[in-house]
Amino acid sequence: MQNTNPQNPAANRPIGIFDSGIGGFTVMAEIMKALPHESLIYFGDTARVPYGSKSKETVTRYSEQISGFLMEKQVKAIVVACNTASACALDALVKKLPVPVIGVIEPGAKSAAAATENGRIGVIGTEATVKSGAYPEIIKSLNPEAKVFAKACPLFVPLVEEGWAEDVVTERVAERYLDKLLMKNIDTLILGCTHYPLLKRIIGDVCGRNVTLVNPAFETARKLGELLQEKGLLHEAGKDAAAKVSHEYYCSDDPERVARFAESFLGEGGISPCMVSL
Amino acid sequence: MQNTNPQNPAANRPIGIFDSGIGGFTVMAEIMKALPHESLIYFGDTARVPYGSKSKETVTRYSEQISGFLMEKQVKAIVVACNTASACALDALVKKLPVPVIGVIEPGAKSAAAATENGRIGVIGTEATVKSGAYPEIIKSLNPEAKVFAKACPLFVPLVEEGWAEDVVTERVAERYLDKLLMKNIDTLILGCTHYPLLKRIIGDVCGRNVTLVNPAFETARKLGELLQEKGLLHEAGKDAAAKVSHEYYCSDDPERVARFAESFLGEGGISPCMVSL
Repeated sequence: MQNTNPQNPAANRPIGIFDSGIGGFTVMAEIMKALPHESLIYFGDTARVPYGSKSKETVTRYSEQISGFLMEKQVKAIVVACNTASACALDALVKKLPVPVIGVIEPGAKSAAAATENGRIGVIGTEATVKSGAYPEIIKSLNPEAKVFAKACPLFVPLVEEGWAEDVVTERVAERYLDKLLMKNIDTLILGCTHYPLLKRIIGDVCGRNVTLVNPAFETARKLGELLQEKGLLHEAGKDAAAKVSHEYYCSDDPERVARFAESFLGEGGISPCMVSL
Repeated sequence: MQNTNPQNPAANRPIGIFDSGIGGFTVMAEIMKALPHESLIYFGDTARVPYGSKSKETVTRYSEQISGFLMEKQVKAIVVACNTASACALDALVKKLPVPVIGVIEPGAKSAAAATENGRIGVIGTEATVKSGAYPEIIKSLNPEAKVFAKACPLFVPLVEEGWAEDVVTERVAERYLDKLLMKNIDTLILGCTHYPLLKRIIGDVCGRNVTLVNPAFETARKLGELLQEKGLLHEAGKDAAAKVSHEYYCSDDPERVARFAESFLGEGGISPCMVSL
């Protein structure tokens, strides 16, 4: 492959992205849009999904194993495309790894802090993400006056996985989960789990027009671009180099299902994810 | 410890029980009732729960790891107290292990085959259990005329874990899941997942009085007693030996949560489950 960035040969390497399962495809989709010349390696830990009900220690151990696998693949940066892993393991990964690592929490928190007008922000996510307090901590560092209200929504992921993203049962569950947050007069709601953007229609209906929904994936993709630029790691592909962009997929279980989701989330066909036991 | 069965010193050893998480406590509870003199070692794979959405290969690998751990603890028999692991991994475990191994599927199938009058049996369970076809296979070997109708109910476990076992949302979900089974005119329904007995009230209401609900745990405990008797492994404790019965708990994540569930399912207090990474 032609080296398009003579200052840094590592710029031609792929970016590693990982998630507890297939939800991270919503983040990968934004990265593909924002950085179309970058090659990507996705790892979904489908054998050990979900992370949201596990302890910080276990999520950190799993995240370290996956990052080790991605480092063997010579990635130039790692995106933790899972809110739970970002909340629980990002600090440990940043300390350990020799490449830049970014999570979705800080970008999501920044977007929300910028979007709110009344300073009252809601966060929904897994139990582990809410328990970590990561979103409130970063939001308050950006805006000490902000009020942050967090709510774990453990049924949202199984409802999406069941294919009930547009179901009346999911509407009832969303009303139940969001009712107390809405009573706090929030004007901004962070969709703090990569599955939740798939429930955007229902969550938007329940919240109404006065609440801005924040999907951390947009800002994460933007921040990734900035970070790569800053480190001289951006793949500055020429016109004909676009054909060389590759997307590789790995998972720890059920590659057929991962392929189906990649197709529907990313519009990529003919994918054969490789199964890896960690 | 006094050897109460001179024919077989192994009779004094504990019985190993494992599950993907905490659902297996419903099986352990029946074993404690049926065999109060037996010492038990429970392992809940809470770091890797749930098994129901995983492949047969992955569930088998995890089940073998846990059985290896239990064998190191010198168990005299192993109960696979998880429908998914019983459906996917029992044959592999029986072949590999030097002690008797029983699952919950065969006892559940036998109970249902005995209970049905019209020969039309429903089975509800995880995706993996339903996909395995294990229940229909055994029921048909007992009664070739029987008609078996299976339905995966992936939301039931998350609903129980959310604490919504008596919630109106769960009623709606149960109606949706059971509607088609009931249209098949079943008179017997196997609760083919260890969490489902906790939804017995709602499932019973949806099914009505004409459908007998089968909890495989009862028959599993009875069969375990028979098997131990047959192999000379029954702990024939005298009156004062009852005090020596021990119940040990291990899990792969979140021991505090396991302790809380053990308390509410089993009525055992002061438990400190030991965390083990497999």
